[in-house]
Amino acid sequence: MSKIHNYSAGPCILPPEVLQEAADAVRQWEGQGLSLIEMSHRSKPFVAVMDECRALTKELLGLPDRFEVLYLQGGASLGFLTAAYNFLPEGGRAAYTDTGTWAANAIKEARHLGDVDVVASSKAENYNHIPTLGEVHSGHAYLHITTNNTIYGTQYAEMPKVPVPLVADMSSDIMSRTFDPEPFALIYGGVQKNMGPAGAVMYAVDRERLGATGRNIPSYLDLNVHLSKDSMFNTPPVFSVFTTLLTLRWLQAQGGVAAIQQVNEAKSALLYSEIDRNPLFVGHALMGSRSHMNVTFRLNHEEHAAAFDKSWNEAGISGLKGHRSVGGYRASMYNALPLESVQVLVDVMKELERTQG
Amino acid sequence: MSKIHNYSAGPCILPPEVLQEAADAVRQWEGQGLSLIEMSHRSKPFVAVMDECRALTKELLGLPDRFEVLYLQGGASLGFLTAAYNFLPEGGRAAYTDTGTWAANAIKEARHLGDVDVVASSKAENYNHIPTLGEVHSGHAYLHITTNNTIYGTQYAEMPKVPVPLVADMSSDIMSRTFDPEPFALIYGGVQKNMGPAGAVMYAVDRERLGATGRNIPSYLDLNVHLSKDSMFNTPPVFSVFTTLLTLRWLQAQGGVAAIQQVNEAKSALLYSEIDRNPLFVGHALMGSRSHMNVTFRLNHEEHAAAFDKSWNEAGISGLKGHRSVGGYRASMYNALPLESVQVLVDVMKELERTQG
Repeated sequence: MSKIHNYSAGPCILPPEVLQEAADAVRQWEGQGLSLIEMSHRSKPFVAVMDECRALTKELLGLPDRFEVLYLQGGASLGFLTAAYNFLPEGGRAAYTDTGTWAANAIKEARHLGDVDVVASSKAENYNHIPTLGEVHSGHAYLHITTNNTIYGTQYAEMPKVPVPLVADMSSDIMSRTFDPEPFALIYGGVQKNMGPAGAVMYAVDRERLGATGRNIPSYLDLNVHLSKDSMFNTPPVFSVFTTLLTLRWLQAQGGVAAIQQVNEAKSALLYSEIDRNPLFVGHALMGSRSHMNVTFRLNHEEHAAAFDKSWNEAGISGLKGHRSVGGYRASMYNALPLESVQVLVDVMKELERTQG
Repeated sequence: MSKIHNYSAGPCILPPEVLQEAADAVRQWEGQGLSLIEMSHRSKPFVAVMDECRALTKELLGLPDRFEVLYLQGGASLGFLTAAYNFLPEGGRAAYTDTGTWAANAIKEARHLGDVDVVASSKAENYNHIPTLGEVHSGHAYLHITTNNTIYGTQYAEMPKVPVPLVADMSSDIMSRTFDPEPFALIYGGVQKNMGPAGAVMYAVDRERLGATGRNIPSYLDLNVHLSKDSMFNTPPVFSVFTTLLTLRWLQAQGGVAAIQQVNEAKSALLYSEIDRNPLFVGHALMGSRSHMNVTFRLNHEEHAAAFDKSWNEAGISGLKGHRSVGGYRASMYNALPLESVQVLVDVMKELERTQG
């Protein structure tokens, strides 16, 4: 079978060597005589995996010592509730930006626990940009943002500067670019884009800010409970954590987040410049809000769709169909997607112009 | 390396052919050209996996049509909260039995949402038996039980007969024996014993009893939300669900739950009869409460420990050390553990008697 250029929006492409090593460990974990997935999570080898995964996350993100990393279950969708439980005080108020489907879901879950002020929204424009921030004041416990909006292909170019801590769902751009962690109380995200396979969610939390809500929090939703158990309050998602560690080790070998950011910027520059140059295509996200991870675009004339779809399929490209909320196409270019795959797509776009333009 | 007899309490032994097929799919999923873990969960092949996994669960458990099956995240520990959210009405009351550490945790989480009457407890005897049930009345929304207590090696021989629906955490004996599902409103359990690898939790719920609590339930904790999305409200734990399906297919090929129950009873009879016969050993769980899944026992004289530990280690047995709450030894004999492995342990016990008795 010829090489597949995997543009899946998530779960998504992982490095081939990670897939190989994860497969080997499922068959028999090197040196253990058993499969990774039939061993106790309390065994020394797996405790070492969890510890390294937490420590390497902290190192790659350049987090200050006061941050602690957890790998739990439930995805960012449960994270929406967990974030509010841990940082929205009883009777309190928080600020949220509404930048897409997942941001709106975060708002919905937080409203179970307190008042939410939506201080910015681009919903009326089908979330095609990151909206200008309204007033955030010291009466807000935090400002919640979704740093990258997978469906719409928008991304915060800079993190907002506000007088309260930031809480961010970084599911779809974590580990893709550097950022200053100082303003953050909590960073969380499903691992199934840049960090690993589906089945785990990462929380990086400033432990000094925890425990101040006055709430009696159910155990699984209490980050302090998980911290007190070194991320093993209950059986962790063993395979997902192990394979996340392999992916983080791969990232470290690439030179870390700053190095992969350069590659990611080269990939997105290549594709956006073709979208802007090629008269057959137009982008969805506005300039200044464009995502380096998910590039949303469409044909100017629907009559070219059949030829374009045939061409990219024949070129071995998969996962390019846009989300139903936006239509058109979406090229998800996570860390493990090589520049070569982007060149293949750009070549198909150029060829379409030559034959149909 | 010689064969390992894997007595791990969970995550635990899985059938070798399941490990092989899961490993192959992580490398490259047959016919897909991609790894299982780098594809969209919305792809047709994975949707088919989820659908088959849910349907096969229902078939193997012999559940009536009104039951629906979900595969979610968070383990039984989040299930404790989910169970109460979905079945304990606002201002309501439920009955719980306290038969071990996990049962006590279930009680703790339910108390976030309403009143709990503990209608039976064997805590004072270090949970060495299933206690006689106190009064359960129609003022209780349900009776919650933990059908098998992994740490203590006790198990309900018969499900309680009460005038209210049953809610059960079956994490450590689901799919190991047949039972009448009629009295149940909800059955749930982490899959990491008899059903698959860590990372997923199964809910089998009577949909006709859902939605009656008067609560505004956070989305991830609302079983109706998950049902409305066919168990894909958010990204599911892809690898865990896939490998659970492989394990369920294996179980079906063994003849299903009734057939594996015969094997499980033969295994536990072999080991319990040796514990009872051999003057060097004594069981922890009382007769009538003994688990077929987790056999807890200890030496009558600690002076034999060094020789015994050396012998079972040399025989290739792993995971036999008891939980710190009970001490001694625990032989976890889940579905995939062959009778041959139990014979190896029994032979070691007999040999200890011959040389040390």
